[in-house]
This record gives sequence, structure tokens and C-alpha cells, in this order.
Amino acid sequence: KINGDRLWDSLMEMAKIGPGVAGGNNRQTVTDEDGEGRALFQTWCEEVGCTMGLDTMGNMFAEYPGTDPDALPVYMGSHLDTQPTGGKYDGVLGVLGGLEVLRTIKDLGIKTKHPIVVTNWTNEEGTRYAPAMLSSGVFAGIHTEEWAYDREDAEGLKFGDELKRIGWRGDEPVGGRKMHAMFELHIEQGPILEAEGKDIGVVTHGQGLSWTQVTIEGKDSHTGSTPMPMRKNAGLGMAKVLQKVDEIAWSHAPHAVGAAGHIDVYPNSRNVIPGKVVFTVDFRSPELSVIEDMEARLRVEGQKIADDMGLTIAFEKVGGFDPVAFDETCVTAVRNAAERLGYSHRDLISGAGHDACWINQVAPTAMIMCPCVDGLSHNEAEEISREWAAAGTDVMLHAVLETAEI
Amino acid sequence: KINGDRLWDSLMEMAKIGPGVAGGNNRQTVTDEDGEGRALFQTWCEEVGCTMGLDTMGNMFAEYPGTDPDALPVYMGSHLDTQPTGGKYDGVLGVLGGLEVLRTIKDLGIKTKHPIVVTNWTNEEGTRYAPAMLSSGVFAGIHTEEWAYDREDAEGLKFGDELKRIGWRGDEPVGGRKMHAMFELHIEQGPILEAEGKDIGVVTHGQGLSWTQVTIEGKDSHTGSTPMPMRKNAGLGMAKVLQKVDEIAWSHAPHAVGAAGHIDVYPNSRNVIPGKVVFTVDFRSPELSVIEDMEARLRVEGQKIADDMGLTIAFEKVGGFDPVAFDETCVTAVRNAAERLGYSHRDLISGAGHDACWINQVAPTAMIMCPCVDGLSHNEAEEISREWAAAGTDVMLHAVLETAEI
Ligand SMILES: NC(=O)NCCC(=O)O
Ligand SMILES: NC(=O)NCCC(=O)O
Repeated sequence: KINGDRLWDSLMEMAKIGPGVAGGNNRQTVTDEDGEGRALFQTWCEEVGCTMGLDTMGNMFAEYPGTDPDALPVYMGSHLDTQPTGGKYDGVLGVLGGLEVLRTIKDLGIKTKHPIVVTNWTNEEGTRYAPAMLSSGVFAGIHTEEWAYDREDAEGLKFGDELKRIGWRGDEPVGGRKMHAMFELHIEQGPILEAEGKDIGVVTHGQGLSWTQVTIEGKDSHTGSTPMPMRKNAGLGMAKVLQKVDEIAWSHAPHAVGAAGHIDVYPNSRNVIPGKVVFTVDFRSPELSVIEDMEARLRVEGQKIADDMGLTIAFEKVGGFDPVAFDETCVTAVRNAAERLGYSHRDLISGAGHDACWINQVAPTAMIMCPCVDGLSHNEAEEISREWAAAGTDVMLHAVLETAEI
Repeated sequence: KINGDRLWDSLMEMAKIGPGVAGGNNRQTVTDEDGEGRALFQTWCEEVGCTMGLDTMGNMFAEYPGTDPDALPVYMGSHLDTQPTGGKYDGVLGVLGGLEVLRTIKDLGIKTKHPIVVTNWTNEEGTRYAPAMLSSGVFAGIHTEEWAYDREDAEGLKFGDELKRIGWRGDEPVGGRKMHAMFELHIEQGPILEAEGKDIGVVTHGQGLSWTQVTIEGKDSHTGSTPMPMRKNAGLGMAKVLQKVDEIAWSHAPHAVGAAGHIDVYPNSRNVIPGKVVFTVDFRSPELSVIEDMEARLRVEGQKIADDMGLTIAFEKVGGFDPVAFDETCVTAVRNAAERLGYSHRDLISGAGHDACWINQVAPTAMIMCPCVDGLSHNEAEEISREWAAAGTDVMLHAVLETAEI
């Protein structure tokens, strides 16, 4: 078993970097705080005796040697970046849990045939730079590196420039590594495990996602002196579309969810009717056909609303991935490990996207989930117990040891 | 008659300060650009031979002497601050039109019994600091100076500090001046004059306004892994309230208007269900009872929506003024001037709030309006013709000369 206290201490130490305003974290991707978090992680990895690889997307690979120089490494990992008002565990548990697995292996003097690598994937959250899981996506060949470098944040700063600025753009070509397997430990970010009192979620599938950025344009004009019939209120158009998004998602519930988290209104002045709004609709489902249906209905219904109101509307797909089925062998290794260790468990479909979803396209992959309080995530109040963190990491240790061959 | 070309040249010269992104202006109150605009206005006033007064709210008073040292001055004026995406005429025409009246009086060697003063009122727009017409409101005793100084912009900078920082906080106690009368020339910001082909609007009344800032709180959580029934989506709550605002305003149309121009969503991340939204509802009507009805219904309907969705909602009145009836004598002076000069005219109710609305509480006041293209204002594309500007200024010249007694 791993050392739960040591793991917890490292989680708390990392959480000091980029503190939030309400007990959580704001350590967004390729900020100075992200750089600080990376440096701390690297120090810890070197203390275990790892060598650190860094690719051109800033993905970090801490490698612990195996006994067979020709064997492909077994990977663990997740992400150290957070939401602007994020928690201390989303992503971080998977990275520092991987580190704790290495520390335990070293303590116990265990030798595996395959080397073991812990990875920190750059920009998983996708808040500052859409889409989410950007760098694991480039690693898996979904996006090109040039396209990723050109992503812009709200201030117009490019991803590639910011990665370089913080000093974490490496030389290793991205995607060159071959993997024997990859495991990602993550908090559930949903309510099922806690509600059912299960220690471990064995993730068999991942929901698919579609992000559609919607731009509605009307005419900014005076809120006082523009008569009601002459208005082209883009904000009101958005309000109607947001209600449609909710209706469309409910029409497929419980097999779908939908909402808009990102909304920008222009010029955002109390006495100016909004001339333009930009917002992103997030639709998800475990079924590809449902996602496609929701996307299509958003476009049709949105266009109708805009036409009725004399507005223009434009739709741009800014992110998305198809539903995922994880690798049978890896999933079985996770289930067996939970069973062997005596942890209660159940199969799960991941509601969120994860780096593992992209890596699954290029290597056998599985995920381990642990409960989180009230299913709450992407919130500074995100919470897990020390025991939950330890149990999830124990399961990862055993699944990795089975896969890396002792 | 005034010199229309000289007036136009000054308008164009002022528009060079704080240019917008689409041909208009971004010269928001108590910014460096506001300071530059003020300095240019002061230079021009001194060239005409005025002395400049500056009060503790930054209101500027350029005084041209009369023949009777005991006579109270006749005032003209409006504001030089603009919306973030504002036009070149909203406010500016009233200030530079006043300056053009003085230039004309000087050119023609006209002597009036009463001194004549041109005023630039600080922060009329109310975008950076709510409420609108802040400094004319303090002048008229509606707000205290301390309260005004404490207003904060979106970055938390205080009005009083910013006014001092740009160097335009004067020593003259605000509101000390007594006025014989005050005239404000302004673009209509609405479509009526242009549609009816009238040169001049004789403003008899002003609509009242109510600004209610609404804060809806839910729970920020993951857009992917939070099941639909567990969501507390503050953004969706806002969408429903915005539709009610529209319904409520239409129920009183054409005697009311309503919209929300200001909307902020938190944390504004694509994969976080909004936990909080703050937006400002702008309701207006020429009838006080209608405004009160709309305000009350917003609170009742908003509360119902929030309760149904498990959200909290709070309402704060952040600005407002009652409908205004301008001074009969001053209004008649405007109507007579238009008539005498042969300009077509009609009586109007102002849709927007103006400094004149507050000053009317402490001095006999009236407004002159000129048409603007498509009724468009609070938009960089705001446009007027050289002839419209000249006609409005001619009428102000004559109304002022009648009132100031040649
Ligand atoms: N796990 C997680 O929050 N990933 C971000 C991508 C997503 O929105 O699902
Ligand atoms: N004239 C003008 O746009 N004033 C700003 C206050 C208002 O919104 O009416």
C-alpha cells in the first residue's frame, strides 16, 4: 500500500501554489503559477531518482527505470493546471498519486520489467485556451502542434508564446513516445461513488463532448431612447438560446447534459443594449448520436430565434471528442486491483473529459476514480478524504505493478 | 447664427482624443483620455476669454462675463465623457455647442446682462461608475459627494481617487453656484425627429429610469459530470429573468422600455456551470407608476424563477430618477427660438437621462434636441449632419440670448 499521509502532504504543498480566493486554486495553464507547480513536481521526481523528459507542448515525463531496457514504459498521469476557481484535487491527484506510486516502489525496492513514467499533461482544463486536453490531444495526433501554439486566450496571448515565456517548452518532439499502457487516477467530479458508498470507480467509458461557440450579433443602441420595436438585443437572443440548450439537454436526460459556462456580452454597459454576445455551449453524452442530435438542434433552434429577432447568429465548434471505450485489459487490471485490495467498487462512465480519453487512441488506457464530496468539482470547495485519495492510489499502484510486470 | 464649420471642426478635433475601434470614441469618465479632453476644452474656453471654475466633483464652469455683476449666470452644458463604444456627439455636442455660442457672442460683440457659463459635467454616462449623471446629481443635492467618491469601477478603483489621479478634482465646493437658467443641447438618441424630418426637438419632459442590479447565485460545478437534476445554474436563471424583463417592458409599450446591458458571469469558464451572475436591468417610462410597476414585477417574477430553480436572487437599486417636467419659461424660450429661426420643430420627451434632468431640480432648465441618423446612439456609428448640429446650436444661442437679456 502507498503512504496516504505523504500523498496528502504533497497535495497540500502543491495547493499552496496559485491559491484561489475561497480555499481552492487558481493555477491556470501556462501562467507563472503553473511554472512554479511544475518546478516543485520536478524537484520531487528527481528526489525519487527519475529523469525528466519535456516535450515541445510542455508535457512532463518523469521516468523511473525498469529492468528491461527494451520494454515500453507504463504511464501514469493527469494534469497540474486548474480552473480559475478550481479545487486542489482535479488533475493534481492523478499526477501526485503517480509520484506516490513511484515513491512507494522505491521504498519497497520493487523492480519492474517495464520502466514507469509519471506525466503532467499541459492545459487539460481548457479554460484559458480551448479546447480542453489540448496537449494530450496533440500527443495523440488529434491536433497539430502549430494549431495548438496558435490558440489565443481572452487577452490575445498565444499558447505557444506563453508556454515559452514560462520556460516549459521542451525540445522532445511531441507524440514520439510509445506506451505499453497508461493509467489515470482522477476524482469522480460527480455524485455516484459517494452516494453509493463505493471506494473506487472502475472507468469503462467516457462521455463525449461538444463545445459550440455561439456569436449573436444585433445592434448596440441606447437602452432609454431606442423604442422596443426597433431593438436588436443580442443579450435577449442569448437568453432564449440558453433556455433551448437546457430543453435540448433535458430531452435526452439522463443520457445527456448541457449548459453554457462562458458568456461575454459587448459592450457590457448598463445603458447600452448588447450588440454582441459570445458564449460556449457544452453538450455531453455517452452516445455519439445524442451529441450529434443536440448539436444539430442547437443550430436549427438558434437560427430560428435569431431570424425571429432580426439578429445574426454564427456557430463554431471549438472543442469536442467522441465517447470513449477504455482498453479491456487495463480496465480489468484496475478492477482486479480494487478486488484484491478489498475496496468496494463499481463500473463508471466518466462525465468529464480527461487526458486518458485522448491517450486511449494511441495506447491501452484506463482510469481509476475516487469519490468527491457532493460530486462537486470545478469549484474551490471541491473536497475529498485522505482515505479516498489513498485507496485510489493503492489501486493505481497495483494495476501498474501488474501491467509493468514485477 | 453660429459658425457651423467652426463647431464641426471642434467636434472632430475633440473626437481625436480617446478614439474608439470603429470610428467612434472611448473616452470614459476620469480616464487619462477624459483628462486630455478636458485640457483641450479649457484651452478653447480661455481663448474666448472665459475664466474656468472647477468644483470638487470635477465639473468645469467656463464663465463669460455679463454687464450686471449681480445677475445670476445663464448656463449651457452637457458632458465630454463617452461610452466605451460611444459616438462623437452624445454629450460633446452640448459642451462644444455651448462653446460655439460663446465664440459667436464674442465675434458679434454682443453684451448680455447675465454672465454665461458653459459646463462639462463629470461622469454623465454612468458606465464606468454607476449611476449615470453622477456629478450633476451631486451638484443638485441628490447624492452626497462622499458617496460619489466611494463609487467603484469593475477593477475596484474609486471615483474620487481616479478624479484626483487625472488632476481634475477642483477646490470649488460642489453645488454652491446659483443659476438663472440652464440649457442643454443634445442629440436625440432616438428615431423620431429624423423620421418626421424635424430640425429641432423641444424637450418638454424626460423619461424616468430605474437601474436594478440583480445577483443570482447557484453553485459552480462541472458541466460534464454534474447530472441535470443536481444543477444550480445561475446563468440559466438569468436567461429566464432576461425574458421576463422583456415581457414586462412590452406589457407597457410604447410607454416603457426595458433591457439589461451589463451582464457578468462567474467564473466564466466553458466547463463550469455558472455559480453566480450579476446584471443590471434598465427600465424606463415617462410615467412614474409604470416604472414602479415594472420594478416590483421584476422582484416578484425574479424571486419566483430563483425559488423554482433552487437559486438565490438579490436586487439592489443602483440608479434611477423620476420622470421630469422641464421649466415652462425655458421650454418656451427654446420653442420661440426655433420658430424665429424658421427651423421645423416638435415637442419631445427625452428617452435618455441627461444632466439637465438633475439640474432642473435646482434651476429653471430646458433641453434642445437635434436628430441623429437612424436614432442610433451608444454606438460608435452614431452620426449627425453638420446642418443638424448647427441648427441646434443656433436655437441654443437664441434661447440663451433671450434668457440672458441683451
Ligand atoms: N476533468 C476535467 O474537468 N476536464 C476538463 C475537460 C472537461 O470539461 O471535461
Ligand atoms: N444621454 C445619455 O445617454 N445619458 C446616459 C444616461 C442614460 O442612460 O440615460
